[in-house]
Amino acid sequence: MNNYSYDEISIGHKEKFEIKITEQMMESFLSITSDTNPLHADEVYAKTEGYGNRVVYGMLTASFMSTLAGVYLPGERSLIKEVKIKFAKPVFPGDTLTVEGEVTDKNDTFNMIVLKVVMRNDKNEKVLRGSMDIMIREETQQGA
Amino acid sequence: MNNYSYDEISIGHKEKFEIKITEQMMESFLSITSDTNPLHADEVYAKTEGYGNRVVYGMLTASFMSTLAGVYLPGERSLIKEVKIKFAKPVFPGDTLTVEGEVTDKNDTFNMIVLKVVMRNDKNEKVLRGSMDIMIREETQQGA
Repeated sequence: MNNYSYDEISIGHKEKFEIKITEQMMESFLSITSDTNPLHADEVYAKTEGYGNRVVYGMLTASFMSTLAGVYLPGERSLIKEVKIKFAKPVFPGDTLTVEGEVTDKNDTFNMIVLKVVMRNDKNEKVLRGSMDIMIREETQQGA
Repeated sequence: MNNYSYDEISIGHKEKFEIKITEQMMESFLSITSDTNPLHADEVYAKTEGYGNRVVYGMLTASFMSTLAGVYLPGERSLIKEVKIKFAKPVFPGDTLTVEGEVTDKNDTFNMIVLKVVMRNDKNEKVLRGSMDIMIREETQQGA
């Protein structure tokens, strides 16, 4: 896990990772949310609606923004304040997503960074665009 | 599950539900995202950082916006296009949240509604404010 302090982060700093969307993730997200919408939960229904498979919950795809902030950029001291998300294309179980964040602004008063987020599928199509305002907590003075 | 058509929805329409945040949800969200950030995953760490317990992942709290749209308003024909989220206060495992959505705008050209979202905890404190732009899919002509 990364642990960047506010001062260690510059505008233009990028981090990325890949994640494959599994059927198990779909079941887990359903168990959390009870979102039984058939577009996500029923393959036959999704196909009658013109999709090749059931569609991944948009908010499941968005949940990897949590990982991006909390593990990669800034990592440990992350505190997400605001999130904006645009869903550009449907995601399907089995897709591997590349999740990338880039620091586009810093606010010294609040120790806040703005992270632009792009997620792409296997075909290099943008499936999600977004941004996060993330406060970077100061290190706790342990052992003091 | 509700199944409102675009025409059946008016500005001012509200729907709400309650959901209790469980430890199991925290484990499931961790298993989906691999977000091992200790503020969410490590109770001792969270306490040294000044919280009474580990903090619920913001994006886990936000995931109930999926349920709000996909099950309640508009329900079956929901297609979320954009999401905006502001985290106002920390949520803890065991908290029961009230998730409420209200239609604040309609766009006839795109069959799109704007849903204002507020989530409150047991103490009636706002923990999340947000909005969603949701397209309402037309009914498939089945049996035609």
